[in-house]
Amino acid sequence: METRYRLHYAPDNASIIVRMALEALGQPYETVLVDRSTQAQRSANYLAITPTGLIPTLETPRGAIFETGAILLWLADTHGALAPAPEAPERAQFLKWLFYVSNTLHTELRMTFYPRQYVGEEHTTQSALRQQVRANLVRALDLLDELAARGPGWFNGPHPGLMDYYVGACLRWMAIYPVMNTAWFDIARTPHLHLLAQHLDKDAAAYTVAQAEGLGPTPFSAPHLPQPSEGSAT
Amino acid sequence: METRYRLHYAPDNASIIVRMALEALGQPYETVLVDRSTQAQRSANYLAITPTGLIPTLETPRGAIFETGAILLWLADTHGALAPAPEAPERAQFLKWLFYVSNTLHTELRMTFYPRQYVGEEHTTQSALRQQVRANLVRALDLLDELAARGPGWFNGPHPGLMDYYVGACLRWMAIYPVMNTAWFDIARTPHLHLLAQHLDKDAAAYTVAQAEGLGPTPFSAPHLPQPSEGSAT
Repeated sequence: METRYRLHYAPDNASIIVRMALEALGQPYETVLVDRSTQAQRSANYLAITPTGLIPTLETPRGAIFETGAILLWLADTHGALAPAPEAPERAQFLKWLFYVSNTLHTELRMTFYPRQYVGEEHTTQSALRQQVRANLVRALDLLDELAARGPGWFNGPHPGLMDYYVGACLRWMAIYPVMNTAWFDIARTPHLHLLAQHLDKDAAAYTVAQAEGLGPTPFSAPHLPQPSEGSAT
Repeated sequence: METRYRLHYAPDNASIIVRMALEALGQPYETVLVDRSTQAQRSANYLAITPTGLIPTLETPRGAIFETGAILLWLADTHGALAPAPEAPERAQFLKWLFYVSNTLHTELRMTFYPRQYVGEEHTTQSALRQQVRANLVRALDLLDELAARGPGWFNGPHPGLMDYYVGACLRWMAIYPVMNTAWFDIARTPHLHLLAQHLDKDAAAYTVAQAEGLGPTPFSAPHLPQPSEGSAT
């Protein structure tokens, strides 16, 4: 089968979300490791296709796409699965939560992983950022737990969709990153998201990605640090 | 003409972006003031439709939509204008920049307006955040200036689209907010975005919104603080 997609990835990075979507869509793809141990995401070659230096990027017949939310939405619309179609009645509600996850849940989580990028080198300042942003994240998780409880079909429904993969990956990362600094997070606080994570643990697409990147046996509901066969998660 | 949309707005808030899109699409709408001077965005009534407490929200026949990027994209797809259609070849490139503007340009700009929400009360910590995030914003503006220079049709083209309205509003805010704390920003640094802002100043939809919310005569290229007829911008 012809490979139309090439995913620039690092193990257990946001690329896992796109990879789960590609697996769930049954689309063949190649992977290209972005070696974070050598800062390859800041290399001239990578910046030429992804000027933000962020991972993932998906090369497609329509050019290279970066931004996790954009890649996910484009894949779903192009292949007609994993999200309400543009003309579907649920599209409006789906889009608002997709953007929310992109610019609040995911972005604020990144702030707790890379505080230096937002407040500079000072450790007490970084701690202040983490403390405040984690309070924000707790509220965000509450909102998403309520959404999961309502079960609008395209989230926490019988078959995982884009939003499940996206939120599931964030739940994983909250439980294990930064290493030894995750006591603030307790998935049991949000029981519907906990069920979503347990459901994802058994999903075929998620399982394939977990195997490929060494994410362990319960990668969403009770995750451990990855043991990837190549590359570095951080 | 039947009004299908109700925009919850505050003058010169992110609601101006949605309002410009509604005007450009020729869609009738009602406005409902969210009175920031009484913190109406945190009232039980508002939180019932917008649990994030953010402005804007657009009430639609498909329910209330919050998240600026989501509202914009849904409006464009529903009315078939202002952005590449889901099946258009340029859709992939458009989406990646829309998400980028939503979760980086807009989100980081908010951090400089409301640093307390990210690092708490300490003033030196807030200054550290503003300094670092503004360095990020300068890079983001450089990337968007390069994109504007390439002129991909759906951005900085002959007729403003979603991305022009979105970036144009951010350019306006950078020049005037926080009051007396905008020396870091110089639109002349990014000449293609400067032209985009001058172009927007003359756009009919933008002009209508500027008149309605008291945004002044050159609201994007050389803005002044608004003089709204009702409500408060901050």
